[in-house]
Amino acid sequence: MQKHTDIATYTEITPTAPIYVGQHGGRAKCLQRLVRLDMPVPRTIALPFDKVQAIAAGYPPNTAAMIAEFGEDALISVRPSSEDPDWGGPRAILNIGMNDARHAALCETEGPATANALYLRFIQAYAVHVARLDPDMFDAPILTPCADDPDLSKALATALRAYEDETDEQFPQDPARQLGEVLRSMARAWAGTTARLLRQAKGAPEDAGLGLVVQQMAMGIGSGESGSGVIQFVNGTTGEPQITGRYKSQSQGRDALGAKSEAIFLNKDPRGTSLAEILPEQFEALVRFGKLGRERLRDEMQIEFTIENGELVILDAVRVSRTSAAAVAIAVSLAEDGIISREEAVLRIDPRALTEMLHPQVDPEAERDIIASGIGASPGGATGKIVFSATAAQASLAQGDDCILVRRETAPEDIRGMHASVAVMTEKGGMTSHAAVIARGLGVPCIVGAHGISINHRDKILKLPDGRFFTEGDIITIDGTTGEALAGAAKMLDASLDGAFTTLLEWADEFRDIGVRANADTPTDALTARRFEAQGIGLCRTEHMFFEDDRLTVMREMIFAKQPEDRRASLDQLLPMQRADFIELFKIMQGQPVCIRLFDPPLHEFLPSTREGMRELAESLDLPLSDVTRRIANLKEFNPMLGLRGVRLGITLPEIYDMQAQAIFEAAVEASKHGDPVVPEIMIPLVSAQREAELVKTRIDAVASAVRFATGVEFTFRLGVMVETPRAALRAGDIAQNAAFLSFGTNDLTQMTYGLSRDDAGRFMSDYVQQGVFSEDPFHVLDTDGVGELLMIGADRARDAREGIMLSLCGEHGGNPESISFCRKAGFDYVSCSPYRVPVARLASAQLAIADPKPE
Amino acid sequence: MQKHTDIATYTEITPTAPIYVGQHGGRAKCLQRLVRLDMPVPRTIALPFDKVQAIAAGYPPNTAAMIAEFGEDALISVRPSSEDPDWGGPRAILNIGMNDARHAALCETEGPATANALYLRFIQAYAVHVARLDPDMFDAPILTPCADDPDLSKALATALRAYEDETDEQFPQDPARQLGEVLRSMARAWAGTTARLLRQAKGAPEDAGLGLVVQQMAMGIGSGESGSGVIQFVNGTTGEPQITGRYKSQSQGRDALGAKSEAIFLNKDPRGTSLAEILPEQFEALVRFGKLGRERLRDEMQIEFTIENGELVILDAVRVSRTSAAAVAIAVSLAEDGIISREEAVLRIDPRALTEMLHPQVDPEAERDIIASGIGASPGGATGKIVFSATAAQASLAQGDDCILVRRETAPEDIRGMHASVAVMTEKGGMTSHAAVIARGLGVPCIVGAHGISINHRDKILKLPDGRFFTEGDIITIDGTTGEALAGAAKMLDASLDGAFTTLLEWADEFRDIGVRANADTPTDALTARRFEAQGIGLCRTEHMFFEDDRLTVMREMIFAKQPEDRRASLDQLLPMQRADFIELFKIMQGQPVCIRLFDPPLHEFLPSTREGMRELAESLDLPLSDVTRRIANLKEFNPMLGLRGVRLGITLPEIYDMQAQAIFEAAVEASKHGDPVVPEIMIPLVSAQREAELVKTRIDAVASAVRFATGVEFTFRLGVMVETPRAALRAGDIAQNAAFLSFGTNDLTQMTYGLSRDDAGRFMSDYVQQGVFSEDPFHVLDTDGVGELLMIGADRARDAREGIMLSLCGEHGGNPESISFCRKAGFDYVSCSPYRVPVARLASAQLAIADPKPE
Repeated sequence: MQKHTDIATYTEITPTAPIYVGQHGGRAKCLQRLVRLDMPVPRTIALPFDKVQAIAAGYPPNTAAMIAEFGEDALISVRPSSEDPDWGGPRAILNIGMNDARHAALCETEGPATANALYLRFIQAYAVHVARLDPDMFDAPILTPCADDPDLSKALATALRAYEDETDEQFPQDPARQLGEVLRSMARAWAGTTARLLRQAKGAPEDAGLGLVVQQMAMGIGSGESGSGVIQFVNGTTGEPQITGRYKSQSQGRDALGAKSEAIFLNKDPRGTSLAEILPEQFEALVRFGKLGRERLRDEMQIEFTIENGELVILDAVRVSRTSAAAVAIAVSLAEDGIISREEAVLRIDPRALTEMLHPQVDPEAERDIIASGIGASPGGATGKIVFSATAAQASLAQGDDCILVRRETAPEDIRGMHASVAVMTEKGGMTSHAAVIARGLGVPCIVGAHGISINHRDKILKLPDGRFFTEGDIITIDGTTGEALAGAAKMLDASLDGAFTTLLEWADEFRDIGVRANADTPTDALTARRFEAQGIGLCRTEHMFFEDDRLTVMREMIFAKQPEDRRASLDQLLPMQRADFIELFKIMQGQPVCIRLFDPPLHEFLPSTREGMRELAESLDLPLSDVTRRIANLKEFNPMLGLRGVRLGITLPEIYDMQAQAIFEAAVEASKHGDPVVPEIMIPLVSAQREAELVKTRIDAVASAVRFATGVEFTFRLGVMVETPRAALRAGDIAQNAAFLSFGTNDLTQMTYGLSRDDAGRFMSDYVQQGVFSEDPFHVLDTDGVGELLMIGADRARDAREGIMLSLCGEHGGNPESISFCRKAGFDYVSCSPYRVPVARLASAQLAIADPKPE
Repeated sequence: MQKHTDIATYTEITPTAPIYVGQHGGRAKCLQRLVRLDMPVPRTIALPFDKVQAIAAGYPPNTAAMIAEFGEDALISVRPSSEDPDWGGPRAILNIGMNDARHAALCETEGPATANALYLRFIQAYAVHVARLDPDMFDAPILTPCADDPDLSKALATALRAYEDETDEQFPQDPARQLGEVLRSMARAWAGTTARLLRQAKGAPEDAGLGLVVQQMAMGIGSGESGSGVIQFVNGTTGEPQITGRYKSQSQGRDALGAKSEAIFLNKDPRGTSLAEILPEQFEALVRFGKLGRERLRDEMQIEFTIENGELVILDAVRVSRTSAAAVAIAVSLAEDGIISREEAVLRIDPRALTEMLHPQVDPEAERDIIASGIGASPGGATGKIVFSATAAQASLAQGDDCILVRRETAPEDIRGMHASVAVMTEKGGMTSHAAVIARGLGVPCIVGAHGISINHRDKILKLPDGRFFTEGDIITIDGTTGEALAGAAKMLDASLDGAFTTLLEWADEFRDIGVRANADTPTDALTARRFEAQGIGLCRTEHMFFEDDRLTVMREMIFAKQPEDRRASLDQLLPMQRADFIELFKIMQGQPVCIRLFDPPLHEFLPSTREGMRELAESLDLPLSDVTRRIANLKEFNPMLGLRGVRLGITLPEIYDMQAQAIFEAAVEASKHGDPVVPEIMIPLVSAQREAELVKTRIDAVASAVRFATGVEFTFRLGVMVETPRAALRAGDIAQNAAFLSFGTNDLTQMTYGLSRDDAGRFMSDYVQQGVFSEDPFHVLDTDGVGELLMIGADRARDAREGIMLSLCGEHGGNPESISFCRKAGFDYVSCSPYRVPVARLASAQLAIADPKPE
């Protein structure tokens, strides 16, 4: 057993007392700040972490001395004070010191109603939280005391009797003993396993300490105007200035916030009485304290106050709890008022919280034809066609159609389909069901537990309780914020990217020292990228362009071509379509860099998988069905991810890349006529050997010359390599000789480094993370130890071989603060992430730059 | 154009002349050696490489001076002399100097027959190889001249006329001009593209030079006993001492070896006249020269000689061409006679050549029921059941049945099936067809172009021209050496691993400084491993053990188990079978180390893929068919290689590894009772994170304790990790903390490092190698640049973290000399390869150790 021979004693909170957040907790420190601001805070002492720990271990606190500090007659409260208020802590206990004698005295001075209420509250709290008796036995409501209250008096007697019955002893009468038990109880609760796990889930370290704050009670119950309340000066949802809060006469603690309380407004309000009317001076003081707090505590504070016989007492102040939007508004406002610096405003916002603000929402004012209600498991709104299987979702994505996956419940094998959907709805499940967890991870609106609907997966029918039904392809809207599914396309509100949001990100850009681009395949993506001020497109995948109906047919002809000439003929048909795609993208991006990845997927993705589809294809190609089935069988692969795709296709069927390069160059020439000159970047996927890049480079240079000659226009371009295989990272020195840039595709690189297919990992990834085999899912958080080392090796070798080579990271890790931190340290030029992650990436980069500036 | 102002002139070959292989070629040097041995070699001059190169470039050789060296009347020959005789070169040209005047003079002295024959041979050679005229016009046979030969005289006249008609000029009469043209022609032929490509295919460097040897003719045609012949003193097939060769009167060059020649035997032979009889002294001299050559030139030489009017003249000597078996016998014999050292004997054998000697052959004496004849495209014999598809071959392998793949032709997608077969036969194709090339690569006996047979793949019938037919499962034998397919199981001869073979490998083991183990999964493999003296088993895959019929059912029950208890119950049934497997292996290996890889493949490999198979399974498990199909669909993976397999299965379904570990330990206890103590090595597959090894280690240690307790027997074991993912190599330092050894599985590691599935790479690998994208197929030759670097990283980090950790390479690269060289340099403890590669690996390791001894 530990010995506690040298325990720091308690400290009275005075302006100059040695109170530290790391020793006494945040609440103690905050109270000291209020004291320094001359706010009327009751006498308070703080017990440091080590003392509380000693108490938990059995060391008896010297409560007699503490009681003496406050005087024999005082009532006192004990509140937790952990280092970070978010880590929680045991409940506050009020009215310590109440006993029969004190009750009798109070009956004399304040009347029996007040005395009863104060005593009953203490007995209830002590019985349940200190003596750990059955809460059901101590659940009499504490009504607002009034002079003539037989119920309260009866409740008090019942509670005292219940305590005695349960414990076989009288309710403790000695204030020192009361306080001692309260302190011990709170100290032990903090040391318990449940509390430890809970706070660790919120990020607390294993050895997080608890301080306790013992404060003289300000009586919100009494004969003069007494009561308690809270007040704040901004709207916690929007961050706009607005006095918010409640005050309730004859109440203690946070009673005024209780749902059924008979509280009154604070400032004048047409709907009823207000504190500003009944106690104008005290209200003015509160407003003054609020302003003072904002300026001196440098944040919007919620103040807990008590009126004790007409006197204003400030018990506590905590940061106003706020939505992400409000957090941004508050931070920007504080900085604009010169209270905090812009750097600090930027640092105060959790980058991940920004994503909440970016998603469109179903317009709450619009008319709603509700077809199902369930749990809103992932917020935001989306409209799309119903699909009933993951496969159908992928097919829909391939065709560029937004779809909504509707299933009884989801399983790991549906993840790919969820990825491909704009929203998800399941009949079963709760907030922690598979669908809910995954949808939140993907940022896809989701409803789970939509009871009442009936899904027939085989016949692809969604039936409503009222007899209506929907089939595959019908349009519905999911409101993941309210948990409602709506028929048809509901009116949407754009994400509220207000002035504060824009201002904050502008400031962020001032500090940021790494570029942020967006992964954007379509004009819509590109427009989003521009809206979020991405500095160009870091990854434009081109394969979706071949899935559109008219193109798919030509694409299939190309696949079935026997001779290069036939292949070239099919590609000639695709050329103008590709060119048009790129012209549109280039125009949207207005001269910003656009990095286009050449064709990547295996060809079999473009071929039908059903017998029927094969027959149709045979007809349209005028070939025997057996030819079609044979070719499709031939193209089948054991491990498609590791097969004939990427540059391997580019080398075995070079006409494809020729066509794409021609389309890119011609589009660049065309787009440059109308705006800023376009310098396209062309990226070769899945390279594993230097010679692959060299061969492609030779042909693309030739295409460029041909286009220059044919158009008579000079243009430049950059050719680079996507580093997705471990070997490409290892051989980056050679590869850099034929690459003006390297972009690390961490999705595939992670798959290959681990030997782990993302599509197949779902089955055991949660097991793996739970057992701590992987500390995080490496597809969500960049594995800096393994994949990261390959990135460093690749970057170093590429730079050694080619000074000034442009380095970047694309792939879904690109938007993660951890990945950005890694890329900054590795000296990358930019990260590229999905358009909706761009604000996150901009903010996270700025925070990293502020926290750890690069040496000039 | 190059200038040739400083050209070394020719050099007469005398004992002390400065003749160098690197300047004048192998033939010139060899002739000098013969001269030094006092053999009767005619006067010879050598032209060095640079002079020949100059001649090819147009520099005129000073032939008048050369002619003067030999005298005006002499006839001379020119022969090529490249650095390595194997690189080839232009044909020798004989009888240079023959012209009308010399012809007339010879008619006088030797008679017209001799004169005609000598002149005609020269004209023919000159017209075709120097003047490049149509060979058809100069194809008159040069018969043995006899006194009265009108045909020969007529042929001479015809040839002279044809030459004049074609060239519009008289046949060159000036010996100096003749020689000049011959030299220029031979020099240019060497510089030509065809010749360059041919010799580079044999390993010649791009700048390989050609020397030329100009020699005074010894006349094998003349009035006295004249003729030419070759003699050697060993059997080129077996390497046994045996005088072999032919002599032919009135002939030149190598005429005696011509198929239709009327040559005679050399030593006395009951079948006919011999040189030993007609010229006993000269024969004795030849035998003496042979012995001298063997001792002083330190190899078995084939001597080219001429008898000129009874005088023995030695024209040349070359290394006896020989089979691999003969090469081994000769090297061992030379070393045993003290002529060369054991090191040199070991160095003289190409390790890859040993494989030829290891394969069983169809007994040539046995009765043969020939069902098809074709081209023997890959040697050796094998018996098995007919299968008609790659899939059937794999299924057959899975069941442990030897099968023979019979197809019209093969395509890349058949490679997996070829791997799974013991032999291959195709109806179409030649020596360079896909089937032939791949089969040789795999070392699988193969017949291609088996015309006449008719294969119906759909109905699975092989029809013979005589009306007989064979169906799937029928037993046949393939003799890839003769190109014959035989009905039934033919009698086989074991590989002839004679005394010389064993001796050579024993010597190799004396020099070798890296261990060689075998990959062996079955008792048969293990017996082969012992026969080839592998130092243990480096990789024993355990999955095949679950494919046997009775086990497969239990295995499937295990897969369908819902609860760990049910899974454990199924595994309890498998336990005694596994234990028996291991007991057998341990007994065979007699205390040598056996490294057992825990269960690796994805579970779906054990489930049926056809509807029918699923129905049967549903019946046997007493489950609804829909449950079975759903479970099978659930287990399906997009990229099985990167899915739920290896240690990932071991962690999610830990009961499997528990069972295997228990079986291994119990088997070790059992086997140790009867022989040397067994120290099993247990290897965890597909690790990518340290914690995977840690979790498995914890459970396996627990199983070991339980077995120790239950049996009361102490035993030790080693637990290690198979490094197959790039991440495992990068994190080898961490992983080594829970691993007594690391074995690099270069098959998977190559797949992941390149992002390239071996099963899918066939479609473009040949393209890739041809275009030089990959310099070699990385699945055949270890990619030292990429995969090799990961090996080095892994090895270094593992050793830094755990001194003395055992390191090895398993996988198919293990037997390649290049890989072994890499592993030696990296300080690995051993390589492990397929049992039939063990001799190759032992020899290659020894050669590396001799060529580059490790510092002590």
